[in-house]
Amino acid sequence: MLKFCLRKSSETALYRQLALQIREQILRGERLAGESLPPSRKLAAELEIGRTVVKQAYSQLADEGFVETRTGSGTYVAELPPFQPQTSQKTAALSVWAERALQSKPSAERQQKSLEYDFGFNNDFPQIFPYDVWRKLLARYLSTDDTMLARYGSAAGFAPLRSAIASHLTTSRGVRCEMEQVVIVNGVQQAMDIIGRILLQPNDAVFVESPGYIEAYQLLRVHGAHLHGYAVDDDGFPVEKLGNRAAKLVFVTPANQFPRGGTLPLPRRLQLIEWAYAHNAYIIEDDYDSELRYDEKQIGALQGLAPDRVIYLGTFSKVLFPALRLAYVVLPQPLIEPFLATKRLIDRGSPTLTQAAIADFLREGHFERHVRRLRQAYAQRRQILTTALRSELPDWQFSDVPAGLHVMARLPSTIDERVMVKLAESNQIGIYPAAPYSLSPNPDPAVLLAFSGISAEKIADGIGRLSQIRLS
Amino acid sequence: MLKFCLRKSSETALYRQLALQIREQILRGERLAGESLPPSRKLAAELEIGRTVVKQAYSQLADEGFVETRTGSGTYVAELPPFQPQTSQKTAALSVWAERALQSKPSAERQQKSLEYDFGFNNDFPQIFPYDVWRKLLARYLSTDDTMLARYGSAAGFAPLRSAIASHLTTSRGVRCEMEQVVIVNGVQQAMDIIGRILLQPNDAVFVESPGYIEAYQLLRVHGAHLHGYAVDDDGFPVEKLGNRAAKLVFVTPANQFPRGGTLPLPRRLQLIEWAYAHNAYIIEDDYDSELRYDEKQIGALQGLAPDRVIYLGTFSKVLFPALRLAYVVLPQPLIEPFLATKRLIDRGSPTLTQAAIADFLREGHFERHVRRLRQAYAQRRQILTTALRSELPDWQFSDVPAGLHVMARLPSTIDERVMVKLAESNQIGIYPAAPYSLSPNPDPAVLLAFSGISAEKIADGIGRLSQIRLS
Repeated sequence: MLKFCLRKSSETALYRQLALQIREQILRGERLAGESLPPSRKLAAELEIGRTVVKQAYSQLADEGFVETRTGSGTYVAELPPFQPQTSQKTAALSVWAERALQSKPSAERQQKSLEYDFGFNNDFPQIFPYDVWRKLLARYLSTDDTMLARYGSAAGFAPLRSAIASHLTTSRGVRCEMEQVVIVNGVQQAMDIIGRILLQPNDAVFVESPGYIEAYQLLRVHGAHLHGYAVDDDGFPVEKLGNRAAKLVFVTPANQFPRGGTLPLPRRLQLIEWAYAHNAYIIEDDYDSELRYDEKQIGALQGLAPDRVIYLGTFSKVLFPALRLAYVVLPQPLIEPFLATKRLIDRGSPTLTQAAIADFLREGHFERHVRRLRQAYAQRRQILTTALRSELPDWQFSDVPAGLHVMARLPSTIDERVMVKLAESNQIGIYPAAPYSLSPNPDPAVLLAFSGISAEKIADGIGRLSQIRLS
Repeated sequence: MLKFCLRKSSETALYRQLALQIREQILRGERLAGESLPPSRKLAAELEIGRTVVKQAYSQLADEGFVETRTGSGTYVAELPPFQPQTSQKTAALSVWAERALQSKPSAERQQKSLEYDFGFNNDFPQIFPYDVWRKLLARYLSTDDTMLARYGSAAGFAPLRSAIASHLTTSRGVRCEMEQVVIVNGVQQAMDIIGRILLQPNDAVFVESPGYIEAYQLLRVHGAHLHGYAVDDDGFPVEKLGNRAAKLVFVTPANQFPRGGTLPLPRRLQLIEWAYAHNAYIIEDDYDSELRYDEKQIGALQGLAPDRVIYLGTFSKVLFPALRLAYVVLPQPLIEPFLATKRLIDRGSPTLTQAAIADFLREGHFERHVRRLRQAYAQRRQILTTALRSELPDWQFSDVPAGLHVMARLPSTIDERVMVKLAESNQIGIYPAAPYSLSPNPDPAVLLAFSGISAEKIADGIGRLSQIRLS
């Protein structure tokens, strides 16, 4: 007699559990065609369940075609077409894309360490983010008299949000755009993916910053692009070095080079634009932390100088919260249609609820207030961090530009960054290697210290302890 | 004198507005290198703003490199590198993907009509969906002591949701899987995109149902696949017709063929699986409306018969709301790694908040309760619709399977579906052509009547009026 295992507490009706298990037995060949199933009364008694349950299960199996009921004579396993459950078979070949994707390691994991002084990227927004406002905005769209959520949104994004972003970028970043050029995406990474798809042909060259936004680089490589990394200096991307080399795309972070820090000065900006026109290339401007500049010297977006050559990327992950997964792109006119066609094909559009809430957050001034508070908090932390570094570790170099969520400190060349990171960790200090962001195999030693996830009080202490570490 | 337009009500500081406008004038060549800017006192008076504002603007422009301040003598436009703002230039070439994407028209738009009897797909969930519960669940994760949202989630999805889905599918659909095989995606369309990327090589064959899920077909074509549509019958995909033809993928909706209706019977299921093993192909099972079956005769998932050959797709769009943009895929073991590597590369993972809320919605029994209420409401509506169709339009044919959100009615061959749809519309009745879902150029005439967006009261009336329409 074959065994059954029924759980009365399951959300699935008992008869369905029973039917499923008999089905499995038939498919495994444990019950053969023509064999009779136990009479319902008998099986019910054995399993201590009602007879109706067994009858329902048999009826379900009959509907599915696994058994036949012969009136007056019982239930029999049906004659199924010959079916050989294969056990060892080949797996279908993977695509070139898949092979490349498997080779691209997950990037620098920002893993959870439990350290007393952690300069990792774990944001502690909860202390600053206005959760109450956010809850109120979400609730506004979650009411019974609003059918908006029941429909698929536009592939380009929620119109009021696109319009709010266009006006925000025009006034705060000098971006020149109409709302039609703004498309909402599920994070900057998705924008990069769509750009890759609509522009890259196999073996196209792409010029990038090194160190830089490595996750985007990995993606472009999987798209088949040939990446050429240019080592950045204090003024960002070394445009002069491009010479007459051609590429399809160049990826830059002009406002504040990621992760080294530094602002691309005007002459380089103009030269980069001329290069792009000359080679019919597009410039991708990742303005990832545009809101997080702590002095008054912010330069307008590169996009404003050449709206038809620059693809502008912005995100809400940095100032709101990463788990939102929402970003936006401002496109030159000829790219709007192919970009939208692709977005429509690959996921139909981003979730409407979050977009509606962000639109109101922007339009009702919450965004500006929140950014002001963030800037205050981060400016203070950065100040404490840089002051401590200058006094305690004077031979560690870093960018003067007061912006972003971290400082990248370049170490004296005699120090091995991995050794430094390990020693720090054993002293309860979390600092993070810069090498994973670099395209060169042996970059100069440097570490990243984020101040977004550590309180102002702990920063100076942490750097004090860090300076005590003796490298043997 | 060049003009300025400053808005005091703007969120952008006046000095930034002024600086931006001067910058534009310089870039447009309206102010030349060496030219002096108006003295700050004079400009301030003209514009009726404070002199400090003008000074700040000049200082910003000096920081950006557009002007130079000579002590005691004023502010002059700086010598910029030669910069030719191009007006007419080539645009960069688009990729093959982009060309294909542009050719794929947006699918059957479910546009908003304002008709008295609208059998469109506009869901009226607000009457049924438990918004209060949903608000409560969201609020639970939007609190100041929860840092979860401040972090990037896992590319595979929120673990408690994956686990809840695995257990839900095992018990309710006979799916055989471990939580590791479940990956959260931004809608079924994204799952198809990732499957296409990791499995399809140019010119690979894909077998699909016709009529069918046309959005997925368009996407696969843009991926370069050769699609072969097989006309479905009352029992879904005509597996017998495959013969010995090979393909990389076959796409089916076995529980209830979309959009025709009909359940794939067991012999066809087994034959399809044998075909897949023989040709080393994968079966994509789109179980899109698994929860919306209104009798007790639901057959378990195809996946349960061959977990290593079937890629199972499920969605929350149908029973929760489409704007959620969340779906899930259950993968055969060898596809997990390439699928995850791709998901990580293209968008890092789906938004955590919604996932957390759905996980609780499932685990705390809200989902089951909601589905029970939906089923009741929809079963009744479908009953009214089919009864009315049978009595009023007896020569319109449709599937007997009581499931889904619509009925596809096949019209007598003498009727032109477009004419029928137009006439209906002029009588305030919204019915929708089936042709856009078909791959054949001249499919048999049929229309779609959804009952998810029309009240039970209006259904019979609407069909009554429909039957009065005289085709000339």
